[in-house]
Amino acid sequence: MSLAVNSSPLYAAIDLGSNSFHMLVVRHIDGSIQTMAKIKRKVRLAAGLDQEMALSQEAMQRGWECLSLFAERLQDIPEENIRIVGTATLRTATNVDVFLKKANAILGYPIQVISGEEEAATIYKGVAHTSGGTGRRLVVDIGGASTELIIGEGFEPKALTSLKMGCVTWLERYFKDRQLNKVNFERAIEGAKQTLAPILHHYQTIGWDVCVGASGTVQALQEIMLAQGMDEVITHAKLKRLQKQAMQADHLEELDIDGLTLERALVFPSGLSILIAIFELLKIDSMTLAGGALREGMVYDMVKELQQDDIRARTINSVQSRCQLDVEYGEQVAATATQLLKQCGGTQWVEEPQAQALLESASKLHEIGLTLDFKKAGEHSAYLLQNLDLPGFTRAQKHLLAELVRRYKDQLSALPSQHALSTQSAERVLRLLRLAVIITHRRQRELQPNVSVACEGNMLTLSIDEKWLKGNPLSAAELEIESNRQSDMGWPLTIHAI
Amino acid sequence: MSLAVNSSPLYAAIDLGSNSFHMLVVRHIDGSIQTMAKIKRKVRLAAGLDQEMALSQEAMQRGWECLSLFAERLQDIPEENIRIVGTATLRTATNVDVFLKKANAILGYPIQVISGEEEAATIYKGVAHTSGGTGRRLVVDIGGASTELIIGEGFEPKALTSLKMGCVTWLERYFKDRQLNKVNFERAIEGAKQTLAPILHHYQTIGWDVCVGASGTVQALQEIMLAQGMDEVITHAKLKRLQKQAMQADHLEELDIDGLTLERALVFPSGLSILIAIFELLKIDSMTLAGGALREGMVYDMVKELQQDDIRARTINSVQSRCQLDVEYGEQVAATATQLLKQCGGTQWVEEPQAQALLESASKLHEIGLTLDFKKAGEHSAYLLQNLDLPGFTRAQKHLLAELVRRYKDQLSALPSQHALSTQSAERVLRLLRLAVIITHRRQRELQPNVSVACEGNMLTLSIDEKWLKGNPLSAAELEIESNRQSDMGWPLTIHAI
Repeated sequence: MSLAVNSSPLYAAIDLGSNSFHMLVVRHIDGSIQTMAKIKRKVRLAAGLDQEMALSQEAMQRGWECLSLFAERLQDIPEENIRIVGTATLRTATNVDVFLKKANAILGYPIQVISGEEEAATIYKGVAHTSGGTGRRLVVDIGGASTELIIGEGFEPKALTSLKMGCVTWLERYFKDRQLNKVNFERAIEGAKQTLAPILHHYQTIGWDVCVGASGTVQALQEIMLAQGMDEVITHAKLKRLQKQAMQADHLEELDIDGLTLERALVFPSGLSILIAIFELLKIDSMTLAGGALREGMVYDMVKELQQDDIRARTINSVQSRCQLDVEYGEQVAATATQLLKQCGGTQWVEEPQAQALLESASKLHEIGLTLDFKKAGEHSAYLLQNLDLPGFTRAQKHLLAELVRRYKDQLSALPSQHALSTQSAERVLRLLRLAVIITHRRQRELQPNVSVACEGNMLTLSIDEKWLKGNPLSAAELEIESNRQSDMGWPLTIHAI
Repeated sequence: MSLAVNSSPLYAAIDLGSNSFHMLVVRHIDGSIQTMAKIKRKVRLAAGLDQEMALSQEAMQRGWECLSLFAERLQDIPEENIRIVGTATLRTATNVDVFLKKANAILGYPIQVISGEEEAATIYKGVAHTSGGTGRRLVVDIGGASTELIIGEGFEPKALTSLKMGCVTWLERYFKDRQLNKVNFERAIEGAKQTLAPILHHYQTIGWDVCVGASGTVQALQEIMLAQGMDEVITHAKLKRLQKQAMQADHLEELDIDGLTLERALVFPSGLSILIAIFELLKIDSMTLAGGALREGMVYDMVKELQQDDIRARTINSVQSRCQLDVEYGEQVAATATQLLKQCGGTQWVEEPQAQALLESASKLHEIGLTLDFKKAGEHSAYLLQNLDLPGFTRAQKHLLAELVRRYKDQLSALPSQHALSTQSAERVLRLLRLAVIITHRRQRELQPNVSVACEGNMLTLSIDEKWLKGNPLSAAELEIESNRQSDMGWPLTIHAI
């Protein structure tokens, strides 16, 4: 038995935002970030700025009280593993020195008030380290008093902007009377568009392939959509539907939208307005939620070991290592499944290009449930993939991975509805995964049969070496059962000995 | 990032039993046995013995066919990691050489037909390696054609017996007409008692503290009890109730008992009769199911690294290591929780002596859910402890551990009914676990406050250093919330600054 690990060092990222102060405590385990604590206090610093842009005594007091709570935890974390940043409101406040002097003393560590551009760069780092996929991405982060817009590719930002517009400032400017009427919304959206106008040309010139939203506002919107039974993708149509829902309440205090938490309600209309403006002006089709933003960027900045390029590969390697999966076997199943997919014609047969990556990931991780128990291994695999933090995979992709591995062997049942692939594609991926698992049963590449698969629509014919079938009667029997199982699902499968 | 593990070697244990042939394939991971495959075929070898105790050609053919399936898998396992044994029917069959010659050729590895005493010793090994607790244990394993009875302590067997009586032979002898009437049951029970009589005095002289049942018959009985909403402990009263249920069917083919699988139905009345005889003659109060028997004994015999004395400690160490838990912190919580329990008067306050071990185990493993995700960590901890194979813990203990760690922090809810401790004891253990978690929040022994707890019935008063409370406002706030939460559950808790 290897020696059990002792306490691995903790890291802390503290972000003194305009609406809330956040503290994130993590440790680094085997290629992954494990969250140990999250502490959040709604300090509402921005609401304490007066006409002269000075912080009120009360607002500062709220901030200091919160920091004394954070300080308790900070004492136990090595100095080099701590980052504390202040953002928009602290950039703006004329009496920031007064606040910082006492704040630094309470924390025992210096607060860095970072520039808008630095904030945008760190947010991008947090997104890049937690999102998979390729291509150029536009990142949108709507904070309390600033909104960051970044275009980047891989880990490289191409454009970094921080605008003085946020869900708290927009609340005070356009919804001061707390009325949820058309006029207020229109003015808020128009105001946001004017703020965005100067960067429009530059951003359109650079261009992007996908759009990702980070932090609270976008997260709140996604939660509402899921609570209302929509899928996770944010579109302009859905945002306008939410605006309509919001306008059914006259007054902010009466706002009652399924999935909207009380905590988020106050800044919901203002955040929504800014996001609508961004969608309309930048002509965005759809947006998904990023797995991380500012605080995650701070953490990944500190943990040097995690600075790897391919986030999904890093995630899969980390899970394989942490769960002591049989990596060689996983590779064998993935290679076999990919080969079958190619023989079926690749994207000719399974349209979505990302399907292959999902098939490979499921192949590499399907046995994870065995680390719990052989009994119900598929169920355990599904639970683990559904609930593990898997940077690089979206929520919908995790869901599909879980449903695939739930069915990697034994009885077959229909896949539930999901949003990562079309139903037909998901079914086809599942069929190939199951075949790859049976064919590789002997867990050694050199003992695997020569196979080829041909498809005609949904009909599959698997041609397989007759001699191998004779020499491997258990696998032969399983292939026969599998042929019945798939055919019973309406997915004809013929096993052909050659 | 540490390197991911590659294929660790596989082990196979094959047991050619009188009713079924079984193949178990496992690998050894970090102090644990992980099951990779289980293959079982109901060969019914014993049913193929004729009057002269020769195996029929058909029975041998069934056996050889099964072995050719096993052979496929065996090829890929190192020779030194393979054990194949034959038991009662192969000990008895006069033409065993004919069977073995072809069987050895099919498998490519020699089958050892082991003596009854050797079988009993290996079963005991399988039980000792998968069961916790102290004291002397009586182990009962009812097979197809033999029943093993063992008394042992720790890993040391004190008495080993194999009797020529099994659920297949008793079926053919006493239920040949397939009638489930009183006469057949009484004769079967009486016959078993006569077979047991010669060992009675010897076993009573040695004596035992707990009684454990291994293998199919006892497992089937436990499944029936759970399906019928009883707890997992097998008692004489419950066995008689099952006999009554069985007698409601006139004929074996009509047998219909909740929780009884078709596969087990045929040998259910005969196995039940033997067990009733054992309970009555040896005056057994209660019996629980062992986590392993013959095949597990064979496996633990091969994997030398696992030959450690304290099974529960081995299990906890292995889980901590595999999940990379913070071992030092786990020790800190366990020590704190134990200290609190002692201050409450130990078994004066929580009656069951095993409660302390459960409190310590929960303390050491409560953070396991964090390896999945910080969000819903308690839920994840519960899922993992409920489903992980935890040698040394009974099913009921695993269930309680899961329910304790589900509630290790945040909101408090009532514990569901469970059978490991009394409701009051389980609640008290939970209260102490939660307090220990809060007190140790800073994760370092030297930063933990001096505390003492006093109890009066359900009323707890926690006295805690005032200076520490002032210096740790976050923990102080949590203790205050905890006092409300426990009090709201009807478990008064006062925090007293001293």
